Amino acid sequence: MAVENTAVERQDKERLRCVLLSKRRDLRLYLGAEISRIADQIEVIDHGDNRDTDVRLGMAWHPPDDAFSYYPNLQVVCTIGAGVDHVVGCPSLKPEIDVVRVVDPRQAQMMSGVVVWHVIGHQRGFARYRAQQHDRAWEQGQLRRAESVPIGILGHGKIGSKIAADLTYLGFPVMCWSRTPKSISGAARSHYGPVGLAAMLKETEVLVNVLPLTPETRGILDAQVFAKMQRGGYLVQIGRGEHLVEGDLLAALETGQLAGAALDVFATEPLPPIHPFWDHPKITVTPHVAGDISVRAVATTLIAAANAIRGGRRPLHAIDRTRGY
Amino acid sequence: MAVENTAVERQDKERLRCVLLSKRRDLRLYLGAEISRIADQIEVIDHGDNRDTDVRLGMAWHPPDDAFSYYPNLQVVCTIGAGVDHVVGCPSLKPEIDVVRVVDPRQAQMMSGVVVWHVIGHQRGFARYRAQQHDRAWEQGQLRRAESVPIGILGHGKIGSKIAADLTYLGFPVMCWSRTPKSISGAARSHYGPVGLAAMLKETEVLVNVLPLTPETRGILDAQVFAKMQRGGYLVQIGRGEHLVEGDLLAALETGQLAGAALDVFATEPLPPIHPFWDHPKITVTPHVAGDISVRAVATTLIAAANAIRGGRRPLHAIDRTRGY
Repeated sequence: MAVENTAVERQDKERLRCVLLSKRRDLRLYLGAEISRIADQIEVIDHGDNRDTDVRLGMAWHPPDDAFSYYPNLQVVCTIGAGVDHVVGCPSLKPEIDVVRVVDPRQAQMMSGVVVWHVIGHQRGFARYRAQQHDRAWEQGQLRRAESVPIGILGHGKIGSKIAADLTYLGFPVMCWSRTPKSISGAARSHYGPVGLAAMLKETEVLVNVLPLTPETRGILDAQVFAKMQRGGYLVQIGRGEHLVEGDLLAALETGQLAGAALDVFATEPLPPIHPFWDHPKITVTPHVAGDISVRAVATTLIAAANAIRGGRRPLHAIDRTRGY
Repeated sequence: MAVENTAVERQDKERLRCVLLSKRRDLRLYLGAEISRIADQIEVIDHGDNRDTDVRLGMAWHPPDDAFSYYPNLQVVCTIGAGVDHVVGCPSLKPEIDVVRVVDPRQAQMMSGVVVWHVIGHQRGFARYRAQQHDRAWEQGQLRRAESVPIGILGHGKIGSKIAADLTYLGFPVMCWSRTPKSISGAARSHYGPVGLAAMLKETEVLVNVLPLTPETRGILDAQVFAKMQRGGYLVQIGRGEHLVEGDLLAALETGQLAGAALDVFATEPLPPIHPFWDHPKITVTPHVAGDISVRAVATTLIAAANAIRGGRRPLHAIDRTRGY
């Protein structure tokens, strides 16, 4: 893309400045250098505490609360990641600023791989075989077919749809749920709204969460949801930590309503050493590694946003600020 | 199928007798009853130690050494399973008897699911995260893309092809190897013969074995093969235990040439409690549960074989007795 656009970009001698807003200094240093290297029409600057009226483009990952107040003429901010909650929740972000999400098809593929792993692990009882290996016990469990393990996916956007397609390909019956109706084709059955959620959960053995975090979805993974699932179900949680009511999960595992859970995201990250999830025998903890965004995808998004600013257009993949995703 | 054939079969009042040859009494009792129930044109009889010249059809799973000597007019024996080695190795089996393998597409799907699980587990480092969870350690490893993990599959028949298709769908670069050239289309690159084996191994990080067991493939998973793979590779062994030189695997794990191995089949099953595989930190042991054959698939194969005998034809899926698979 950089090669194809060279002629066009060279006409515009001026590089567009892009401020990088994040509490994480290591991320600022690494990503700033990488983006400047890949996207030669963009100059990445570190955020400071001086007012700068010249900056129209930004990118952000967990920005400081007051970060946006220094850039009164900012028009577009790209989130570094698929989720936008860590940016739209920033108190200094004005409502008229366009928030653009990075769309990286490889991220959906990565996240789907993790879901496939947990789903097959549950289907085939690999946790049980690991325990048996420890006991040197040779005992063959029943071989369950993929068709007998219904999957419910919370979230029917780009990531949810990719997971649904992969699990369908592998033979699992798949249902997807979203807050509002979606017109997405595919093998998965689509549900929406509160009534659709109850209908989906009733048939769900493995529940996969990839919802965006909004005021409406905060705490959605609670006792009521677990109780509506098939008994002995399994939770794959790769959305946001704040989606989960932690005590309700522990209670559902205690009663056997859930047989297990795989958690990749947590309300507090890193997960504190004292947290009961770490040594729970039915919980698999991974350190927020289900998916990541490639630097190239961030650069591509920034270049498109810069071109939109120059052309006076709204950038692609800008979220609906009132909806929050 | 039973329904469709009713009119035809009813013309032939006589049910074809089929002897069930196995050392395993539990299998004989269970399977005999099930097959008789599903396939009403077949009468399953238990094997005895009296000569019976009336029997033309049999099915077998690890038959006793002298089992076939009691049935001098046997024409066709169906193996209960995808592998035929446990039947063709029986000393009393005459060379002119047709050995038919059961083909069950669902078995290939089941086996592929297990391979997918081990491959993603290796790609994403889930063993490392399990160890970290035990230590309450939050440390993000590098996220490896599927495209960066080349897979080599030993065996390019129905099962190998299904595994290749699934892994290709999930984004892995896949190569397949067979002893002789195959004309199978698909995304996987095809290799054959000794030169092709070396070429494939050179690029292979995860080696998957689904070869048939023959004199040529016995002990194929040895030090030479492991040494030719990429360093830090992984073995998924779901063929037969006799394919593996156990000491060579332990040595390759010791030097780090292999990072790990998943073993589902063993030279002696159940794996003896004293065996070093059980508590090896880099070996995953499962009790021969990668795939199974459905009773319905066995019944379907037997019905087809019975019809072939009645019609004076060779049955479908009869193996090449000189080749051994």
